[in-house]
Amino acid sequence: MERANGRKENQLRDITISVDVLKNPHGSALIRWGDNIVLCTAFVEESVPPFQKGSGSGWITAEYSMLPASNNTRRMRDISKLRLDGRSSEIQRLIGRSLRSIADLELLGERSIWVDCDVLQADGGTRCASITGGVVAVYSAMQKLLEKKVIEENPIRSFAAAVSVGVGEDSSLLVDLDYLEDSAALVDMNLVMDEDFGTIEIQGTGEKRPITPVEMAAMVELAKNAIANLIEIQKRSLGIGL
Amino acid sequence: MERANGRKENQLRDITISVDVLKNPHGSALIRWGDNIVLCTAFVEESVPPFQKGSGSGWITAEYSMLPASNNTRRMRDISKLRLDGRSSEIQRLIGRSLRSIADLELLGERSIWVDCDVLQADGGTRCASITGGVVAVYSAMQKLLEKKVIEENPIRSFAAAVSVGVGEDSSLLVDLDYLEDSAALVDMNLVMDEDFGTIEIQGTGEKRPITPVEMAAMVELAKNAIANLIEIQKRSLGIGL
Amino acid sequence: MERANGRKENQLRDITISVDVLKNPHGSALIRWGDNIVLCTAFVEESVPPFQKGSGSGWITAEYSMLPASNNTRRMRDISKLRLDGRSSEIQRLIGRSLRSIADLELLGERSIWVDCDVLQADGGTRCASITGGVVAVYSAMQKLLEKKVIEENPIRSFAAAVSVGVGEDSSLLVDLDYLEDSAALVDMNLVMDEDFGTIEIQGTGEKRPITPVEMAAMVELAKNAIANLIEIQKRSLGIGL
Amino acid sequence: MERANGRKENQLRDITISVDVLKNPHGSALIRWGDNIVLCTAFVEESVPPFQKGSGSGWITAEYSMLPASNNTRRMRDISKLRLDGRSSEIQRLIGRSLRSIADLELLGERSIWVDCDVLQADGGTRCASITGGVVAVYSAMQKLLEKKVIEENPIRSFAAAVSVGVGEDSSLLVDLDYLEDSAALVDMNLVMDEDFGTIEIQGTGEKRPITPVEMAAMVELAKNAIANLIEIQKRSLGIGL
Amino acid sequence: MERANGRKENQLRDITISVDVLKNPHGSALIRWGDNIVLCTAFVEESVPPFQKGSGSGWITAEYSMLPASNNTRRMRDISKLRLDGRSSEIQRLIGRSLRSIADLELLGERSIWVDCDVLQADGGTRCASITGGVVAVYSAMQKLLEKKVIEENPIRSFAAAVSVGVGEDSSLLVDLDYLEDSAALVDMNLVMDEDFGTIEIQGTGEKRPITPVEMAAMVELAKNAIANLIEIQKRSLGIGL
Amino acid sequence: MERANGRKENQLRDITISVDVLKNPHGSALIRWGDNIVLCTAFVEESVPPFQKGSGSGWITAEYSMLPASNNTRRMRDISKLRLDGRSSEIQRLIGRSLRSIADLELLGERSIWVDCDVLQADGGTRCASITGGVVAVYSAMQKLLEKKVIEENPIRSFAAAVSVGVGEDSSLLVDLDYLEDSAALVDMNLVMDEDFGTIEIQGTGEKRPITPVEMAAMVELAKNAIANLIEIQKRSLGIGL
Repeated sequence: MERANGRKENQLRDITISVDVLKNPHGSALIRWGDNIVLCTAFVEESVPPFQKGSGSGWITAEYSMLPASNNTRRMRDISKLRLDGRSSEIQRLIGRSLRSIADLELLGERSIWVDCDVLQADGGTRCASITGGVVAVYSAMQKLLEKKVIEENPIRSFAAAVSVGVGEDSSLLVDLDYLEDSAALVDMNLVMDEDFGTIEIQGTGEKRPITPVEMAAMVELAKNAIANLIEIQKRSLGIGL
Repeated sequence: MERANGRKENQLRDITISVDVLKNPHGSALIRWGDNIVLCTAFVEESVPPFQKGSGSGWITAEYSMLPASNNTRRMRDISKLRLDGRSSEIQRLIGRSLRSIADLELLGERSIWVDCDVLQADGGTRCASITGGVVAVYSAMQKLLEKKVIEENPIRSFAAAVSVGVGEDSSLLVDLDYLEDSAALVDMNLVMDEDFGTIEIQGTGEKRPITPVEMAAMVELAKNAIANLIEIQKRSLGIGL
Repeated sequence: MERANGRKENQLRDITISVDVLKNPHGSALIRWGDNIVLCTAFVEESVPPFQKGSGSGWITAEYSMLPASNNTRRMRDISKLRLDGRSSEIQRLIGRSLRSIADLELLGERSIWVDCDVLQADGGTRCASITGGVVAVYSAMQKLLEKKVIEENPIRSFAAAVSVGVGEDSSLLVDLDYLEDSAALVDMNLVMDEDFGTIEIQGTGEKRPITPVEMAAMVELAKNAIANLIEIQKRSLGIGL
Repeated sequence: MERANGRKENQLRDITISVDVLKNPHGSALIRWGDNIVLCTAFVEESVPPFQKGSGSGWITAEYSMLPASNNTRRMRDISKLRLDGRSSEIQRLIGRSLRSIADLELLGERSIWVDCDVLQADGGTRCASITGGVVAVYSAMQKLLEKKVIEENPIRSFAAAVSVGVGEDSSLLVDLDYLEDSAALVDMNLVMDEDFGTIEIQGTGEKRPITPVEMAAMVELAKNAIANLIEIQKRSLGIGL
Repeated sequence: MERANGRKENQLRDITISVDVLKNPHGSALIRWGDNIVLCTAFVEESVPPFQKGSGSGWITAEYSMLPASNNTRRMRDISKLRLDGRSSEIQRLIGRSLRSIADLELLGERSIWVDCDVLQADGGTRCASITGGVVAVYSAMQKLLEKKVIEENPIRSFAAAVSVGVGEDSSLLVDLDYLEDSAALVDMNLVMDEDFGTIEIQGTGEKRPITPVEMAAMVELAKNAIANLIEIQKRSLGIGL
Repeated sequence: MERANGRKENQLRDITISVDVLKNPHGSALIRWGDNIVLCTAFVEESVPPFQKGSGSGWITAEYSMLPASNNTRRMRDISKLRLDGRSSEIQRLIGRSLRSIADLELLGERSIWVDCDVLQADGGTRCASITGGVVAVYSAMQKLLEKKVIEENPIRSFAAAVSVGVGEDSSLLVDLDYLEDSAALVDMNLVMDEDFGTIEIQGTGEKRPITPVEMAAMVELAKNAIANLIEIQKRSLGIGL
């Protein structure tokens, strides 16, 4: 089965990350990933949630939201329904866990990082774009704190990125599914990995049938190359020598 | 490292499922899983959500909630905070996806099943208990509809159960973590599998360090035996010959 | 008119109270009253609401809620409607007032007792079951505090219980109405009484016609015997010598 | 013990009811009861709640609210807390039940009456003032419908009024307690009675000690005279010959 | 085109302001302006919002709300919709800004004034009535504080009032539009002016066509006479010599 | 007093409008106005609000929101506070009125246009940027409908733009105030004008002292040139010959 734009099964869509696009947050990254556009920002606050007070350690909280015009029909705002969308709630928890797992919260000190991922345009894979861009925004914010000597070491221990892998309608293994591919996939998995290809988060769903053990191993393997590419893009966007 | 009650690393806690404990819902199951106590109920309604109308297919929606006294400190009710707890939101989406993936929604017809999982007491693993008990509640509800000839075939295509697996503090592989084990685990995974050990849902988190590929394979393998036991317990609770 | 199960007009339904059924709250009671099943729990917190601060006295707050599957059609959760059900609000205020009126809040000290009454199954009379079970849960919690020498005397000055009385369709005086009887009753009253048959709370409604003074006196009289039985059941459940 | 303004124990405060003070609602009554000022309005809508549809009968719904400046400290609005005050919820249910019990909902036809009771100033007894004024507002609204031949008979079968009775600090029986008396009362009861002194609603609370049976009978008796006076005031305000 | 009641184009409707109509708030004013009836109250609290803490200055916050029966169809309460009406939000911000701009917040000291404007009956111009009545309520409250020597000088530096001006269907310039005139107006403006006819707030809308510069000047001029009359009425209501 | 970047008193900041930057909404415009960045989108729906049904006319609704990272401290999301920010509510009503006043809603037919203005970065004047960008987004959306022959004529009768004018600290008349200028301004006005300099909306506030009539006229005059420039920018962005 042909993928859009003649993309190969193991090929990522075109991805660009623009860093520090806004003047107010300590760090920001605008990630364009295929037709996804996500604005990721990182604000540092000199306080922590109650459960971290006096611990000497910090915290990272993520919020994820889709703008009303990000989809092909207009999405009502959460505030109009007075409830946070369940999917957004699930995704922002995933982003927060992913970012905390690559950060040394003691090096951060008793500070909070608020990471906001706002989807301007969506085409399948916004959670992966949010995590990948969010890492860049947080890293950049930490560099600012380092420069101002607020902290002594960048608390980000390892870069990390996220990618989807799945089994398409025709049983082909696909990396980085767009919206149409995702809707048709038999099986669907999101993987967050660090620089050593250690899995930070794995979330897989047997959409149309269960995942076999063989597929699971193959998908994890397939993701690695994509993760390597993504981390290269992250580092290049930050001007970090590879 | 010793597990509580001398439990072996690959051993489940004691589990009992009482079926049809309430008179109103079409199906219900009270599952006691170690110190977890979860009441799972299934109500059938003769209508479907808007997006399924006219499709000839049904829908399954799950809600998950912890009673205020289920934890070791009192939990404020969601309604007192006017927002659904983020973790509950994540879990009930997982339960819903799991149940829908083992059901033939066309056999259900244009009907909805509301599955409510209310945690009376929690000790690590309530989402697994909810899925495992929820399957029983739904199966029992479907049997009632079969007896009344509302449907012609039980839409549940396969039993399914859920279990947690993890890597403990001392790097031992553990199945079915209790609350204390879960808090200390290096790595933590929840697996939902069907009767053929196909993975319906996998959610893994590198809590304290990334998951290695070897661990991931070992954990999936380890889960299988537990799933087999759980499905046996489900069937026995329903009086189904093994 | 025949009552269900050949019950006499002045006869209570079968009632059992299981004490300390949960491990987390300081006290708990599962009350089965006919087909009603209510889980009552009591959590003690070392703080008081703002209006009691510095008073040396404590406070008791009650919350009442029906689980979605407790009725014959599924009940939407309060959080799904973003508002506390009006009837629940009325009932939990009644439970709170009843419990506070039998407690010596100075003996409790600056502590709060949270009483949660969650209805697992309903068949008319859940507010009476909640009060009757709530008294047991609170009493048990206070005994724990006594044993730990947190307090010096049990602040519960008197047992108390609640029962409904009404005038049935055929003008018969009935005690402890089930759901069907309650729906058909001409007149309906809930009475909360202490061990000396002093009325702590009375709430009567002329559902289909006004209550006559003669009826009111007769109903109060009728309730006494039931209250005596209920307090006996409470004490027995707690292992208190009668 | 002296009552304020030399009032006798069985004496009501000064009460005036101004009818049809607003031009928009079908009926309205401004009741001044001692220092209480409550604006009661009745709007008729040509529709009924879902549970009455097709029944041929109507419905009466009441809402009760205190304006921010009605008390001696400013009261935050419900909308600022995003929740209906529990006490308001309890009171508006009482008003609604009281009004429905004196109305022939079949004579009303498939129409709804919305009764709004807004407290401009409070001094103990606002629920009684709301019911007493609400009856007048509804009666007046029904007269308008009669004049316009929308209905053929006034659905209000009997006037009804409400009054508080209580046992004061010095054990004296008091009718119509003001705020200070109510705060100090040992025992407190609200009674809603119709023209024949049949009790429509009774709500009694042993605030500081239980109510004795003798007191209860005495309080009901004491209320009758007050109710007779109140109904006279209602009728006079409406220009109805006594 | 004839105006209702033979009113001239530059003529205000009949307006009366009754001062200190309630016993609890520090100041209150019931303003009847044609068929509008608005209750304005001012409560002083000995605290300020966080952003004013330590500033030595106070704050004035206004809330505006329409009672359910104030319009010709019943208005649902904000709390029933769980959201503050957008128009109310806009108006209460206007009232707050207007009152703050005539007050010397340093003379007020670190205190808050809560101004509540509750519309009992509406007929076009309730925001103007609220501001005009609100000034009186606040002034009266400040006089009380002066009398009690809580403050040393009345912080209200100048009286101020509000009036609407517009261009009617027939292009006539109209002052003080009632509901029907407002609905038909081509152009509509609300002006808040102080005693020297300085404009504190101007809000104009080209409802059916843009406002021309000539009209704008003429409307501002037209408003002055009305403002002079309104301030005279304010002062007279407070017994201030003109 | 020097303005930032040597800007003259009557000079606008640099403004660029990028049209159709998103693939999903019918029209979109990203407006950069000095340091403000606002994303304006227009979605057309084939339905109208209840009050327009059957009228043959359409409707335009605007929503305005600031992203959490748009300010110099992080802004909590509305959904986290469960209430729409009062200022946002005021601004989105202004945007909606402005857009409706330049549109022929009959030409639109029974369709709704949802205009979303999301502020990515704020520096004073976001409401003006939203209106100016919103007009472009709507115009572009209408052109799409024209091309698809859904409508026969572009319902936008005239371009329109918005600009702020004010009196600075040193009494100089300033056009297009940035955040610092706005905070210090004595007087502040927002003007929405059409192509003929007719005023569609005027909102002026005497922030630190009242506005004089002379100032008001001068400010309106000053705005005209800015509006002419803005409309030129709008047209150029849409490729419309001037």
